[in-house]
Amino acid sequence: MDADGRQLLRLTSSATLSTTAAAPRRPSTTATNTSTASYNSSAASARLSQLSNHIPTASKISSALRYSTTTTDKMSAQAEHPTVLIPGPIEFDDAVLQAMSTPSESHVGMPFVHVFGDTLTQLRQLFITSSPDSQPLILSGSGTLGWDVVASNIIEPGDEVLVLHTGYFGDSFSDCLATYGAIPTQLGAPIGSRPSPQEIEDALKGKKYKAVTITHTDTSTGVLSDPKEVAEVVRRVSPGTLVVVDGVCSVGCEEIRFDEWGLDVVLTASQKAVGVPAGLSIMMLSGRAIEAYKSRKVPPGSYFASLKNWLPIMQNYEAKKPSYFATPSPQLVRALNTSLTQILSVPLSQRFEEHKAASKKIKDAVTSFGLKQLASEEKFQAHGMTAVWLPEGITPADILPHTAKEGVVFAGGLHKQVATKYIRIGSMGVSVTNPELGHIDKAINALKTGLVAAGYQLP
Amino acid sequence: MDADGRQLLRLTSSATLSTTAAAPRRPSTTATNTSTASYNSSAASARLSQLSNHIPTASKISSALRYSTTTTDKMSAQAEHPTVLIPGPIEFDDAVLQAMSTPSESHVGMPFVHVFGDTLTQLRQLFITSSPDSQPLILSGSGTLGWDVVASNIIEPGDEVLVLHTGYFGDSFSDCLATYGAIPTQLGAPIGSRPSPQEIEDALKGKKYKAVTITHTDTSTGVLSDPKEVAEVVRRVSPGTLVVVDGVCSVGCEEIRFDEWGLDVVLTASQKAVGVPAGLSIMMLSGRAIEAYKSRKVPPGSYFASLKNWLPIMQNYEAKKPSYFATPSPQLVRALNTSLTQILSVPLSQRFEEHKAASKKIKDAVTSFGLKQLASEEKFQAHGMTAVWLPEGITPADILPHTAKEGVVFAGGLHKQVATKYIRIGSMGVSVTNPELGHIDKAINALKTGLVAAGYQLP
Repeated sequence: MDADGRQLLRLTSSATLSTTAAAPRRPSTTATNTSTASYNSSAASARLSQLSNHIPTASKISSALRYSTTTTDKMSAQAEHPTVLIPGPIEFDDAVLQAMSTPSESHVGMPFVHVFGDTLTQLRQLFITSSPDSQPLILSGSGTLGWDVVASNIIEPGDEVLVLHTGYFGDSFSDCLATYGAIPTQLGAPIGSRPSPQEIEDALKGKKYKAVTITHTDTSTGVLSDPKEVAEVVRRVSPGTLVVVDGVCSVGCEEIRFDEWGLDVVLTASQKAVGVPAGLSIMMLSGRAIEAYKSRKVPPGSYFASLKNWLPIMQNYEAKKPSYFATPSPQLVRALNTSLTQILSVPLSQRFEEHKAASKKIKDAVTSFGLKQLASEEKFQAHGMTAVWLPEGITPADILPHTAKEGVVFAGGLHKQVATKYIRIGSMGVSVTNPELGHIDKAINALKTGLVAAGYQLP
Repeated sequence: MDADGRQLLRLTSSATLSTTAAAPRRPSTTATNTSTASYNSSAASARLSQLSNHIPTASKISSALRYSTTTTDKMSAQAEHPTVLIPGPIEFDDAVLQAMSTPSESHVGMPFVHVFGDTLTQLRQLFITSSPDSQPLILSGSGTLGWDVVASNIIEPGDEVLVLHTGYFGDSFSDCLATYGAIPTQLGAPIGSRPSPQEIEDALKGKKYKAVTITHTDTSTGVLSDPKEVAEVVRRVSPGTLVVVDGVCSVGCEEIRFDEWGLDVVLTASQKAVGVPAGLSIMMLSGRAIEAYKSRKVPPGSYFASLKNWLPIMQNYEAKKPSYFATPSPQLVRALNTSLTQILSVPLSQRFEEHKAASKKIKDAVTSFGLKQLASEEKFQAHGMTAVWLPEGITPADILPHTAKEGVVFAGGLHKQVATKYIRIGSMGVSVTNPELGHIDKAINALKTGLVAAGYQLP
């Protein structure tokens, strides 16, 4: 077995090199930062220090965790599986999945502390913020946990919050806010549309709001909001109001300029356009948001989501100091580090354009099939997903088994009022940025085949 | 590259077979349940159905994700890395790490719904409960999130809670309870000891408590509590009081009989004796605990930790029905399924005895080195970890770099009052159940070498 093992190592290494050479602008990295693996003597005296100098090097991990190619997808080394094109979880890069298999390590050991700290700093780039007052957070949990962080720390009981409602997630965020004692007021719009700047201005003039929440992409409708436009209205009409963006389906695929647009909170989840398996809640808070938390009159309303517990931990990790409140997941954080290293190796503007182009390709096909989207106008249409009205008389249950036969997973409807009348197609991450995977064409072909199989006559 | 890929596959497969053949009673499984991979037509009409019939088979995943052997550890196929022997995260089985790399899939697709449902059912076996009223939960988060579930759902604002305090985690759980409005009363004991049954009885007679909380193993001190004994006192003296066990460092390595002992909540985290990377909060609730939640006068105090949101989801998943509140992590849940399949393939009583034996080996060595444990009496000593007083004048920072040179990661102190005076050694999971890994001997040798290198003269 030793002999096999050694031979295997050589073979995997050569396979790796071939892959990398074929796609030079998409570096396949592992999360291990070898430059940070050395023993840090100043941190060693920290109360929680757990040390080691037997650190696996990047090359060793890379070689050992590289696995074989059994799929028909070009450029992928993953086991054959249906192509997941839903509004998250998305398809993952090989190196990201490999990082998920990183052997055990201490959550307060210096190798992981460095990776965690670097990953927090990477988030500053991803959210395009250079203000030292901005505070990144990475917590174990789902995107929903980010709402609890907002509602139980930055908002206080009795605070009024204006919730811009573009689908299911406006309702849920309202529920979360109310749980912690805030008073949410929803400003709605017909399905497929969004509140206008004038409506938002009127609402802001009618009442003093602690915060406005925006669902950047509501995955239940595929409706895109415009945080830049909303923030401009807020700063002009009600400058003390915080701007909170639920970017769960937008961070990593839609343009977000945290500092420039004057945003106060942007939150997301790992399994969306950030390209990492589910399990992480990811956020950026502005100095204003932190001030709102610090000046609250009552303690935070939650414990696991409490900034009192987490702020010092995040600040320590980013300063490369071991720190403990609750155990983070080294595997998920290393996977995030790997994905962000890939994402940030290409200009973000290029990434956003690629998502627009892939989305347009799908939306053009939808139109050519004689179908309409829930998002009625182009400016309301998200670039990481497409919500498609099905032909009269066809339900998701009629078409999804057929698209599945084509090897593609789409999502059914989610908006309560119309769930059986539409389907959702995701277009984020490697499925967009690595066109050699062929995922977008596969999606379009599957949709076409599925429609015909369900009895629809194409125009 | 194709040729390399194919050759690689054969080599990895043969390596796999060798490993499995050498350890027949520790089956190396993947989390993919092929029997559940078929298309379920009744569930297809569910609002959220996302379907596929191109399911990777267990053998394909197993072959494709199997990686090479580069470590000196016998029986392990993981990249060389320091042996992590802290009170969690623990060392992981190869198949568990492989499950972490499972390619993307829909969180509401039938293959994952079946795996999630099966995993919830496995928890009933792990916690030894056959009551249909018992309710398992698996949430994305850390073990700490389990406290929020208890404090914001089962306990109401103004409720009195008796916290049996055996270290750091009694303080933290008290903080969590107070956050949601409960009134915690700590019943303490000197460091290394625990409250006596008589003290608990006296406390229960003095006030009406909604719940008693027990830290089964307080990882800050290595002190073991006795939930069976405490539950007997509670049922006799104050039968309406709920018994809540923080089993973060005990579930999977200490005996816990949920029904037989009359427990109401037992909570844990994935990265401890359950043997899965960090990122999951795992719980079992009794019918009484659910009743306490259902009869509360005010809504749950949290949103992400709300049973109102999660109970229907867990019940649906276990009934193999797709359901959505917040996105679970397919990779972590599949890893948990893999680990529980391994754990439950051996009688739990045997597993508990193995942990006792490994723990005794370490504790005997500690004694032979002339050192004492924080847990003063044998019955107070946990079986998944050992907290060791260092010799006078030696701090964790003096010894841990030396033990690290031996390829072992131990943990420093955590109890605030004495953190610089002791270290902690974990002994859970594969490090215990797979003696061929040699981890326990490695720990003892590293401790000995480290003590000498730090200037201690062995007796």
